[in-house]
Amino acid sequence: MVVRNPHLARLPGSYLFSEIGQRVATLRKARPDAPLIRLSIGDTTEPLPPSVAAHMGERAQAMASQAGYVGYGPERGMEPLRQLLSSAVYQGRIAPDELFVSDGAKCDIGRLQLLFDPSCSVAVQDPAYPAYVDTSLVAGRKVVYWPCTPENGFFPDLDTVEPAPLIFFCSPANPTGAAATRDQLQRLVEYAHAHRSIILYDSAYAPFVRDSQTPRSIFEIDGARQVALEIGSFSKLAGFTGVRLGWTAIPRELSFADGSPLATDWSRIITTFFNGASCLSQWGGVACLQPDGLQAIDQLATYYLSNAALLRAPLEAAGLSVYGGRQAPYLWVHTPGRDSWELFAHLLHTAHLVVVPGAGFGPSGRNFLRLSAFGTRPSMEEAAHRLAAATI
Amino acid sequence: MVVRNPHLARLPGSYLFSEIGQRVATLRKARPDAPLIRLSIGDTTEPLPPSVAAHMGERAQAMASQAGYVGYGPERGMEPLRQLLSSAVYQGRIAPDELFVSDGAKCDIGRLQLLFDPSCSVAVQDPAYPAYVDTSLVAGRKVVYWPCTPENGFFPDLDTVEPAPLIFFCSPANPTGAAATRDQLQRLVEYAHAHRSIILYDSAYAPFVRDSQTPRSIFEIDGARQVALEIGSFSKLAGFTGVRLGWTAIPRELSFADGSPLATDWSRIITTFFNGASCLSQWGGVACLQPDGLQAIDQLATYYLSNAALLRAPLEAAGLSVYGGRQAPYLWVHTPGRDSWELFAHLLHTAHLVVVPGAGFGPSGRNFLRLSAFGTRPSMEEAAHRLAAATI
Repeated sequence: MVVRNPHLARLPGSYLFSEIGQRVATLRKARPDAPLIRLSIGDTTEPLPPSVAAHMGERAQAMASQAGYVGYGPERGMEPLRQLLSSAVYQGRIAPDELFVSDGAKCDIGRLQLLFDPSCSVAVQDPAYPAYVDTSLVAGRKVVYWPCTPENGFFPDLDTVEPAPLIFFCSPANPTGAAATRDQLQRLVEYAHAHRSIILYDSAYAPFVRDSQTPRSIFEIDGARQVALEIGSFSKLAGFTGVRLGWTAIPRELSFADGSPLATDWSRIITTFFNGASCLSQWGGVACLQPDGLQAIDQLATYYLSNAALLRAPLEAAGLSVYGGRQAPYLWVHTPGRDSWELFAHLLHTAHLVVVPGAGFGPSGRNFLRLSAFGTRPSMEEAAHRLAAATI
Repeated sequence: MVVRNPHLARLPGSYLFSEIGQRVATLRKARPDAPLIRLSIGDTTEPLPPSVAAHMGERAQAMASQAGYVGYGPERGMEPLRQLLSSAVYQGRIAPDELFVSDGAKCDIGRLQLLFDPSCSVAVQDPAYPAYVDTSLVAGRKVVYWPCTPENGFFPDLDTVEPAPLIFFCSPANPTGAAATRDQLQRLVEYAHAHRSIILYDSAYAPFVRDSQTPRSIFEIDGARQVALEIGSFSKLAGFTGVRLGWTAIPRELSFADGSPLATDWSRIITTFFNGASCLSQWGGVACLQPDGLQAIDQLATYYLSNAALLRAPLEAAGLSVYGGRQAPYLWVHTPGRDSWELFAHLLHTAHLVVVPGAGFGPSGRNFLRLSAFGTRPSMEEAAHRLAAATI
């Protein structure tokens, strides 16, 4: 008798973006010619920097020769890639041997669940990226929501929230677009020290930080190495949503309550449940972190932020409060008194705009919409026109 | 207080191949010029077919243009790839919508653990690929060993084994190289029906099957669709150990004891814990399954089987019983009365040959060595010379 994992029943029927995809497919079936614009899933649309595509292309071609062929890679990822992450992303704050290359942040979020006893509850920003909650539910954890609203500047009130041993924290945040300040992150790190918690810090949107005072990594904060690990991604950094590449940084000081180091178990987990990111993706990552690559990918972030400004204008003109979009590719639009799934359907059917209902990110999101600024300039201009004409 | 997952303590300290890697590294440090030959990890060494490398290279280059760029792919994998797997690998026995593209068999073996209640024990062939056991231990399962020895022709005695709801089964098998016959697999399927078990069938080595009577897929067996899923891989099929690509086939008839379909939960799991295989790898997979690609990858399998024949000769000349190697890239060498880790050290230090101690695959492997035939012809010729000279 094969018994289903009972925790699967705790999940909503579909992953949020699958659910949206199904609703869009239904519309497409009924109205095949509807000129849809997607402001929904955070999917990059701009071509890769030429130096990155060229390097991947050359290395792929070379796989047909004995000299260029590679099989299984090093367990923690290619050495040059870890060296470059250490220097270019972490300015040496994280050593190459504290970095573990992966096929993306979402996959590592799922694998991280394997490290901890199911009795360890997890706190998430409310609203938050659904993978934190969904993977925690499958692992059998209790999930604690830490409200992040306009009233608290989208930073949890650490004096009143329910503590949890594990804390997922994303900054700049998905979906609110809020970038935590140095002071806020310092308080979060102190909180983790005081409560003996571990922060699972998601820096996927760090490339959008423009203000030199805003930290791009939790490891810019004193004391973080004892209480935090960090999950990073090339998806938004370099448009690698399809290429697949990410990493997790685990400082050697980080340990469980029994004193044993997390990194030892993480190494065991990735060698057992994973077999490395594609060599092609890793070569692409190496090209991204060269000086010309870094410049090109920074321009990509600037491009998407200009899209965000385009989308913001008509919404603010309509009198709505719009958050995010300045150091993040997402706008978080407050629509008081309106149910977000109803507004989703309204915009889909009347303006052919696909947005994400805030309720999909947690209870505090139910009167919000998330608009993604990933898109081509012409489509974002058209979307801005439609937003100006729409009644929200 | 962050508590370590207690199941992690059930694992051996290192993943088998990590342990071997560390022992080799120690030797390399002491004797940097030792001319090592690896007959250990099953890592492909031959270049990719030119058509495959060229297609991946072109698509990678095209990612620098708007027309060639892609972001997140379809959740189950690219449609053309699933169509080709359905036709070229499964001759239509499995439909495209029953196929889920992954970044490799090992990763899917880990994710499959999420489907089932931890109370479901798992049976493995003994000896078996360590990932079956290690991922099951982390999931909290009891592991039941089904001895596969020369005495039973490396097929478990189904009349006497301890039943289990989940059965990992690999054919051609790693490490024994035994390819189960149609009759044996028919009995396994009937056993699963009788015990209401599910077979997690690993067909990673199917490309090495040469005998037209030997099944390459569990779905060649009547009744398998109700009791089996199948994990497949491009690693050995096409030398994609570094490129990373695999799949899992889940027939729509396959269900839990409560009658709910496995495929629904699997779809939920891969959208939550995974984000698709690299688009570059998927394009490579499409090229592999074109007629010229299929021909080229079949030649690769033939090449490695010729290596296996080279290695077999000196071992048999020394009077050893050697199994496998005819429809699998592994030789399974019987060394009665000899401890396999001692023999591993002996061959490493005296002949500079890296083999895998059979004990690493399970209790029934303790008097065996696994030799991998993945390697270049010159290195395999040299390895054969050294084996002829070695005292085993």
